[in-house]
Amino acid sequence: MRPSAAIEQLAIIGVGLIGGSLARALRNAGVVKTIVGGGRSEASLARARELGVIDRYELDLAAAVSGADMVVVGVPLGAMRSVFEAIAPGLRDAAIVTDVGSAKGSVVEDARAVFGEWPNFVPGHPIAGTERSGVEASFSELFQRRRVILTPLPETATAALQRVRWLWQATGAEVVEMSAAHHDEVLAATSHLPHLLAYGLVESLSRWDSSQEIFQFAAGGFRDFTRIASSDPVMWRDICLANREALSAALDRYTEDLARLAALVRSGDGQALEQVFQHAKQARDRFVAMLEP
Amino acid sequence: MRPSAAIEQLAIIGVGLIGGSLARALRNAGVVKTIVGGGRSEASLARARELGVIDRYELDLAAAVSGADMVVVGVPLGAMRSVFEAIAPGLRDAAIVTDVGSAKGSVVEDARAVFGEWPNFVPGHPIAGTERSGVEASFSELFQRRRVILTPLPETATAALQRVRWLWQATGAEVVEMSAAHHDEVLAATSHLPHLLAYGLVESLSRWDSSQEIFQFAAGGFRDFTRIASSDPVMWRDICLANREALSAALDRYTEDLARLAALVRSGDGQALEQVFQHAKQARDRFVAMLEP
Repeated sequence: MRPSAAIEQLAIIGVGLIGGSLARALRNAGVVKTIVGGGRSEASLARARELGVIDRYELDLAAAVSGADMVVVGVPLGAMRSVFEAIAPGLRDAAIVTDVGSAKGSVVEDARAVFGEWPNFVPGHPIAGTERSGVEASFSELFQRRRVILTPLPETATAALQRVRWLWQATGAEVVEMSAAHHDEVLAATSHLPHLLAYGLVESLSRWDSSQEIFQFAAGGFRDFTRIASSDPVMWRDICLANREALSAALDRYTEDLARLAALVRSGDGQALEQVFQHAKQARDRFVAMLEP
Repeated sequence: MRPSAAIEQLAIIGVGLIGGSLARALRNAGVVKTIVGGGRSEASLARARELGVIDRYELDLAAAVSGADMVVVGVPLGAMRSVFEAIAPGLRDAAIVTDVGSAKGSVVEDARAVFGEWPNFVPGHPIAGTERSGVEASFSELFQRRRVILTPLPETATAALQRVRWLWQATGAEVVEMSAAHHDEVLAATSHLPHLLAYGLVESLSRWDSSQEIFQFAAGGFRDFTRIASSDPVMWRDICLANREALSAALDRYTEDLARLAALVRSGDGQALEQVFQHAKQARDRFVAMLEP
């Protein structure tokens, strides 16, 4: 099979925001013949078929992957292992399996527990999403100019890695590789920690006596700051559990830095505060310039 | 003077994002005859005149307010007292003075130190803004459907309060009243604390060894979460100093709650994490529904 040949049959387990957007993007790119959805909720799969995101669906996951040359697993991290177990009996020998989980160490552990050291499993994570979830929120441009991180294992076959790389490139994404451990550290800092801080702030404020009034006087800055606190609670519970080591380390570090900042506020050290804010603003402005060239 | 009569001469000290947007909005509403700008930077004032935001400007602040029936002070909190001192000699007896500072306790203190218990001073704060600053970023719709909080003092004359209320209503804003102390508590929670957390996160991450790489893998969620970290460092230094008591209390409370959340992550308590996230998501979704009916 040449790497550029279309996918004959793609199975997507979990046709939500990510799985649905991937299906739409690959369909738009004309690189897939048949898309079969698999999952727990028949209503959601039926909706995905209605929307034309998938061609058909199976509630039995072994049946969903049966005959597929490419399988993408897009379920919450806590469901990974049981989904791997459920699809294993249906997989063709040549099938390539990848996932879109937001933490990679736990997925690697789950995959090895089920598949052993299997050359056709390629752990992956598209750095894209919105605070919404479900197939209704999916759209084909979600991955355009976004990064997708692949964290191949020592046993991963080069051909499988290349095939998954090609898959994501077909959606308009830029693919990079790193180790699962490094991925988990980086994402703890830029994604998992901010989500926890946002959830934590909204939760904290909502427990103030005057919370109704407090929210009433919040403005656009607060809305943007807390946008990620509208994300799917189950998905984020799983991410926090799956990546709890790296996330705890990032939290510790942030908490220490915040305590230093709080001390500057308390002591009224305007010069030091201005320096911190100036430095942060410069770093943030550089980041935005990088994101939107 | 009927409350609905146009302002003959409006002086705006500090023609930046807020002052400039106010000038534009009042001009659009047709409720002001002449707008005089005052400030430190001649380049910025000249630009404001070029843009048609003000009719003319004065670098001498007493001259800027001379002849004005309404004066709006829109300078960083740290400059309030010296600006009050500079305008005092130029004020007409009947002039009404208001400000747009993001903390009110410190402004009240500054005003009383300069004007004494003067009936024509009305402390105010429009809950609106963007992370950008300067007259170039100003636009007339900034206050539409936004809240403006007025914190009148016992000595404030009802006529002065009504006049400032009318001024903000003319911009499309909804005006509410509360005490300065209560304002400072509420804003510490919804605005000052989030700004500090966002500045703190970006600063913290920018000091990691791999910060360049970390930012490279940040996505839209991180961009929104940190948008307010691109705000003006001097303005926010002053806010943190001016409102440090209420902000420190909010910080303490948040830090305690965050420590509890960190303990849930560390111990892997998925059920409790999910509950927190669920509750936060509900509160945040309610808040957004309230903001955008």
